[in-house]
Amino acid sequence: MGTRFLLSELAARIGAVLQGPDAEVSGIASIEDALPGQVTFLSNPRYVAHVRETKAAAVIAKDPVPGAECAFLLAPNPYYAFACALELFHPREMRPAGVSSMASIHPGATLGKGVSIGPFCVVEEGAVVGDRAALVANVYVGKGAAVGEDSLVYPHVTLYHGVRVGKRAILHSGCVIGGDGFGFAPSEKGYRKILQVGTVEIGDDVEIGANTTIDRAALGVTRVGRGTKLDNLIQVGHNCVIGEDTVIAAQTGISGSCRIGSRVMIGGQAGLAGHLEVGDGVMLGAKTGVASSISAKDGAAWSGVPAMPHKTWLRMAMLLPSLPELFRRVKRLEEGKTAKEEE
Amino acid sequence: MGTRFLLSELAARIGAVLQGPDAEVSGIASIEDALPGQVTFLSNPRYVAHVRETKAAAVIAKDPVPGAECAFLLAPNPYYAFACALELFHPREMRPAGVSSMASIHPGATLGKGVSIGPFCVVEEGAVVGDRAALVANVYVGKGAAVGEDSLVYPHVTLYHGVRVGKRAILHSGCVIGGDGFGFAPSEKGYRKILQVGTVEIGDDVEIGANTTIDRAALGVTRVGRGTKLDNLIQVGHNCVIGEDTVIAAQTGISGSCRIGSRVMIGGQAGLAGHLEVGDGVMLGAKTGVASSISAKDGAAWSGVPAMPHKTWLRMAMLLPSLPELFRRVKRLEEGKTAKEEE
Amino acid sequence: MGTRFLLSELAARIGAVLQGPDAEVSGIASIEDALPGQVTFLSNPRYVAHVRETKAAAVIAKDPVPGAECAFLLAPNPYYAFACALELFHPREMRPAGVSSMASIHPGATLGKGVSIGPFCVVEEGAVVGDRAALVANVYVGKGAAVGEDSLVYPHVTLYHGVRVGKRAILHSGCVIGGDGFGFAPSEKGYRKILQVGTVEIGDDVEIGANTTIDRAALGVTRVGRGTKLDNLIQVGHNCVIGEDTVIAAQTGISGSCRIGSRVMIGGQAGLAGHLEVGDGVMLGAKTGVASSISAKDGAAWSGVPAMPHKTWLRMAMLLPSLPELFRRVKRLEEGKTAKEEE
Repeated sequence: MGTRFLLSELAARIGAVLQGPDAEVSGIASIEDALPGQVTFLSNPRYVAHVRETKAAAVIAKDPVPGAECAFLLAPNPYYAFACALELFHPREMRPAGVSSMASIHPGATLGKGVSIGPFCVVEEGAVVGDRAALVANVYVGKGAAVGEDSLVYPHVTLYHGVRVGKRAILHSGCVIGGDGFGFAPSEKGYRKILQVGTVEIGDDVEIGANTTIDRAALGVTRVGRGTKLDNLIQVGHNCVIGEDTVIAAQTGISGSCRIGSRVMIGGQAGLAGHLEVGDGVMLGAKTGVASSISAKDGAAWSGVPAMPHKTWLRMAMLLPSLPELFRRVKRLEEGKTAKEEE
Repeated sequence: MGTRFLLSELAARIGAVLQGPDAEVSGIASIEDALPGQVTFLSNPRYVAHVRETKAAAVIAKDPVPGAECAFLLAPNPYYAFACALELFHPREMRPAGVSSMASIHPGATLGKGVSIGPFCVVEEGAVVGDRAALVANVYVGKGAAVGEDSLVYPHVTLYHGVRVGKRAILHSGCVIGGDGFGFAPSEKGYRKILQVGTVEIGDDVEIGANTTIDRAALGVTRVGRGTKLDNLIQVGHNCVIGEDTVIAAQTGISGSCRIGSRVMIGGQAGLAGHLEVGDGVMLGAKTGVASSISAKDGAAWSGVPAMPHKTWLRMAMLLPSLPELFRRVKRLEEGKTAKEEE
Repeated sequence: MGTRFLLSELAARIGAVLQGPDAEVSGIASIEDALPGQVTFLSNPRYVAHVRETKAAAVIAKDPVPGAECAFLLAPNPYYAFACALELFHPREMRPAGVSSMASIHPGATLGKGVSIGPFCVVEEGAVVGDRAALVANVYVGKGAAVGEDSLVYPHVTLYHGVRVGKRAILHSGCVIGGDGFGFAPSEKGYRKILQVGTVEIGDDVEIGANTTIDRAALGVTRVGRGTKLDNLIQVGHNCVIGEDTVIAAQTGISGSCRIGSRVMIGGQAGLAGHLEVGDGVMLGAKTGVASSISAKDGAAWSGVPAMPHKTWLRMAMLLPSLPELFRRVKRLEEGKTAKEEE
């Protein structure tokens, strides 16, 4: 945290233009908490008023705020510039390379250069841990599973056998990649398990939240594409294919064999029935229930159960509390009264 | 994967009838991915067209598909026959018997014959691991807990003290069996914990998904019956009793003291209020919210919040997007206009 | 379980008044399962009939039940008195103090007096485990994280670096405290991670359910206040602040930067959009979807998606199944028919 920059230097490194006097800054904080000598940012317009009151030395923003006394670091995408500034003030602490003597590494596993493997990790036969990848502690990497270069795996993650994770991926604690998909054949004697003999492939630069579960395919591969970000406690069923740069919020559930496009955004607690497609660029609101395929051609944003265009949903939802009154109004009409007669 | 069978031999072993020329087959794949020399299956009628284009040597199906060039393995329950065929091509790899030197086994624990206990497993005092059961790695078996014969427990599973798991059960990574139920007595000084002094019993042939949580009873027993299958990220509250051969999809939540019957099917993200009954054979759609008891006598399939007969829900849900229009139509009627006058 | 009390003694210790003959009792059970010589309780009026049939020696209740043959332990808050009685019959078994030789404790960590640390726990540099706190097994305490005095941490819990947990807290298996919040800055090249450099603070006497996830703040602190109880599989987003003595049922999701008051009650599977406030004392029904801030001034109880006053929701929800019929009725009116003409 002892990192210091001149605003001019910071501007150059985050692709911003300094407006105001140069000064040394020593940290980054929210607009309400920033202290003198710190930098903050404005990306949500409703915080404009705070800019005039902030103690921060400078604000990363798209445009200067009239009446503010601080300097500005003007950037076309201030949130992105803020992300870059954060990285400068908080450079990634490299985990020390080395394998804990309290880890269990199968002699038939392959460890890359500079890996960091903490205590109580298990790396099974034929598994591969890429160069500079870190398994923090208590991580399980199954037989023949692979973790790509520079990936970071937090405690209590499970990678079942054969699962492949790309480069620079971040897997948060408790996520489970490659558990059996939910498939059972009914018979008179009860259910018979359908062996799940496929696998899971996680692309480069993917981040997977805590306690999220991604099931292995029955046959074939469950895929999560490059750059996609999954929040916590999400369920991805077997044989799903998720595109690139898609973001999915917490507690969403995706049933088996869904195809989710790229640059899709899905709100929290949404649910998707099986075997459907969600096209590139579609946005699903929180708690949406998707029962059939959706393409962005029919509208980008969807909400409700079952899913309808978001604007329709907004109008509909606003009226729901008036439904009892509507029933009464219809009853009055049936009794032969019009609104005028009512008066 | 080197397993090979003659189609005639495969037919005999999965209870199917071969129609078409005999040939050697070497694997099993989906209807779209199957290669020459492989077997595939047809259980969902909408894939019929794929049968005519498949490269597979044979298709497991109920009836032959006219115009298809492949052989058929005809079975009355093709999905079940497929399950059997999968097992032939992918025989279960027995985990090598033995206890890792990196496991912590209390001297007062009882280990059956042929158990397989991987590194960083903990088996506490008085716990029992049945014959041939496998604790893959990083599994915690609490004081006096029991894992039945031939059960398979994946990494990072927690069995709290006293919990009992039946035979041939499969517990996926991160599931937690026997955590405290959610019970607190309010008082002026805040909440006081109700000690949860009951336990959990999981029947034979149960499968429990990754990161699913099943709470111990406050007093008495939370039960999951024989052959029941729970998907990932499900919550089962304290004192619930779930019958046999019931299947519950991911992210469903069952509040405390519910009684769920046998052969019940529950879709994903459904929620059940506490202290209610769901009768044998009931089907609950995804995202259903059950607020009172349901019996199959009142209809087998239910959906919606709160739950209503599924057919009613379908009609209702179809109309929701038209609700704003309905309000306008009623307003017009109140203004004294009928549809005719409108024209 | 060998604990025995005279009813008169039990009454004194739980703040109840004995009505009926004194006798020795040896255990506590539910009203249906209680055996002779045991105590039970009545807090839900619908179980009154059971009191007349119970075999229990005495019932903890608010008022005696006419016609019952058992003794009564009369208490103004019988559920609370039951909680106290349970503690007497099931005194907390202290985990033996000591640090397992199979734990990994960094020399720069600080362990209090009488801590109990089981096998395969990791306590990183600068971390603090308070006096008499217990880490059962396979627990990960990150760099600089702190667990307060007398807290109990079950297997497979992860505390990320810097997270602080108060005194007498109970953390159930698989919960993850301090994982990265879900923040990414979109750009033309895909998403760039917003480093999450804040932390999490969990107050005294908090209980956190199995597999619940609480994300660290982007900047600043995610807080859970004293005495608050979270059930299983809950998601708490970054920068949330939750007050004191609030209870939240399983599978609820709270988006980032929400402020939840004190003595709030939230049902299962509820969802809250980001950056909103829920005032002190508000009650949210199961599956409620909160899209904007709610204060108890506007009504204590809310339900529905989006949230509306609970009473409104009840009336609305009751009418939903009749919506198809309402559409037909309006159509008839538009055709110029009134209810009378219909007949």
